[in-house]
Amino acid sequence: MHYGYFNGTVAPTDQLAIGVTDLSLLRGYGLFDYFLTYNGRPFQWDWYWERFQNSASRMHLPLPLCKEETYAVVMNLIERNGGADVAVRFVMTGGYSADSISIEQPNLLILTEAIHPVPPVQYEQGIKVILDEYVREMAEVKSTDYKRVILMAEAIRAAGASDLLYQKGGEISELSRSNFFLVKGEKIVTPNRHILHGITRRTVIGIAQADFRVEERPVLLSELYDAEEAFTTSSTKKILPITQIGDLTIGDGKVGPKSKFLLERFDELIAGW
Amino acid sequence: MHYGYFNGTVAPTDQLAIGVTDLSLLRGYGLFDYFLTYNGRPFQWDWYWERFQNSASRMHLPLPLCKEETYAVVMNLIERNGGADVAVRFVMTGGYSADSISIEQPNLLILTEAIHPVPPVQYEQGIKVILDEYVREMAEVKSTDYKRVILMAEAIRAAGASDLLYQKGGEISELSRSNFFLVKGEKIVTPNRHILHGITRRTVIGIAQADFRVEERPVLLSELYDAEEAFTTSSTKKILPITQIGDLTIGDGKVGPKSKFLLERFDELIAGW
Repeated sequence: MHYGYFNGTVAPTDQLAIGVTDLSLLRGYGLFDYFLTYNGRPFQWDWYWERFQNSASRMHLPLPLCKEETYAVVMNLIERNGGADVAVRFVMTGGYSADSISIEQPNLLILTEAIHPVPPVQYEQGIKVILDEYVREMAEVKSTDYKRVILMAEAIRAAGASDLLYQKGGEISELSRSNFFLVKGEKIVTPNRHILHGITRRTVIGIAQADFRVEERPVLLSELYDAEEAFTTSSTKKILPITQIGDLTIGDGKVGPKSKFLLERFDELIAGW
Repeated sequence: MHYGYFNGTVAPTDQLAIGVTDLSLLRGYGLFDYFLTYNGRPFQWDWYWERFQNSASRMHLPLPLCKEETYAVVMNLIERNGGADVAVRFVMTGGYSADSISIEQPNLLILTEAIHPVPPVQYEQGIKVILDEYVREMAEVKSTDYKRVILMAEAIRAAGASDLLYQKGGEISELSRSNFFLVKGEKIVTPNRHILHGITRRTVIGIAQADFRVEERPVLLSELYDAEEAFTTSSTKKILPITQIGDLTIGDGKVGPKSKFLLERFDELIAGW
């Protein structure tokens, strides 16, 4: 059983509920964040907190807890779950609103959840994604606006794909819930705008810099044609190879050695976390 | 006290709550609709139902109730409120999701709320709006994505304005929660794309056709300069004059006779509803 925190109360998640005048329900006004624990400790906690704080500020929502108070809540929830590693989700909304539009007092929810690891076969064979002409509004803010990938679920399934790769006017930004990287020789290239700045992306850039030249810059669709490897990064996916993008096969269509090498470095980092 | 309906249960609104794994909370995946009753009867019920059904279909959510069942719920809620006229809000979400992304079973909420009428002074003097370079994603679907106007609340207040008028590349679409009209001689002009097709808009077009030539077409910012009058329409605002748009005064800056005339016709219609 997983536990959650809601405005000062801790309870099993299935007993938590939010009133129906909340602005996330009525107006889609909410933000979130999501991270894993390794060896019982939140991974990259400082960076996640910094991003959550930044999203809240960009959405004009004052945080009801400071960093230390929030950390204490998170550790309390982890202990109640028996100490096994979990996913932690923060959700902050515009709160209950008497006139259905004005912010009064944000609601803060902190949930622990089961980790849903990627099936091993996807690491062995890589995944297929399909291109989608789309860019997230306020992409750099982790708002709860993830309608697009739910709307496109059937198109993804029909294509035998796992996810969307967003592009707009020929410029690639990100996948629906993860970042995008290309490998070209000793270069690792990743888009730097119209994206959510992933903490796993940041971690991978740090790891890669020891062995590669990392370029954070606009990436065009035309660059897919001579890419050797491609992969996506997120807290859950870690470093997941992409071997097909629509009808285009990346490199020789197999998981490449550089993606594997980076995943090994990443796994070493989390093993020692 | 107002009552609401949630997945088959009727209760006072402040006792209704939704579980925290709902996709509207986690992913902004929801749609809604909103209408008033006059003389105890839902205004333009057939048209609102048609729109709600269309929004649900566009968001791939099967409706749990048919038209007649929904009407019976609405009438039951109105009666519990003592029969006074109310606002009715439908909210349908992607429902509870085990993996935080996949739709299983939608949640349907029907709320009655107090009507918040526009202050009379706004009908007498008209309102000011400010321009905002923005277009709603899936504007024609009444999704719950109304982040923009909440984000801009402080900018609206600082300008002494009441609302935003969205434009993109010089083409006007709509206000944040209502439609836009211009009056030029015997012509009434209203945008026809990148908009939510308002039921009040549709009603006003029907009323206006007896005395004006109504043009539904793209409307450019440059057309504001020789407009005699401007107004906005919504269920709550009815026909509300706009006398200032940013620094630009519309016509002579006073509420014009044609807006007043149309509002009188509209008030006659609802008085006899």
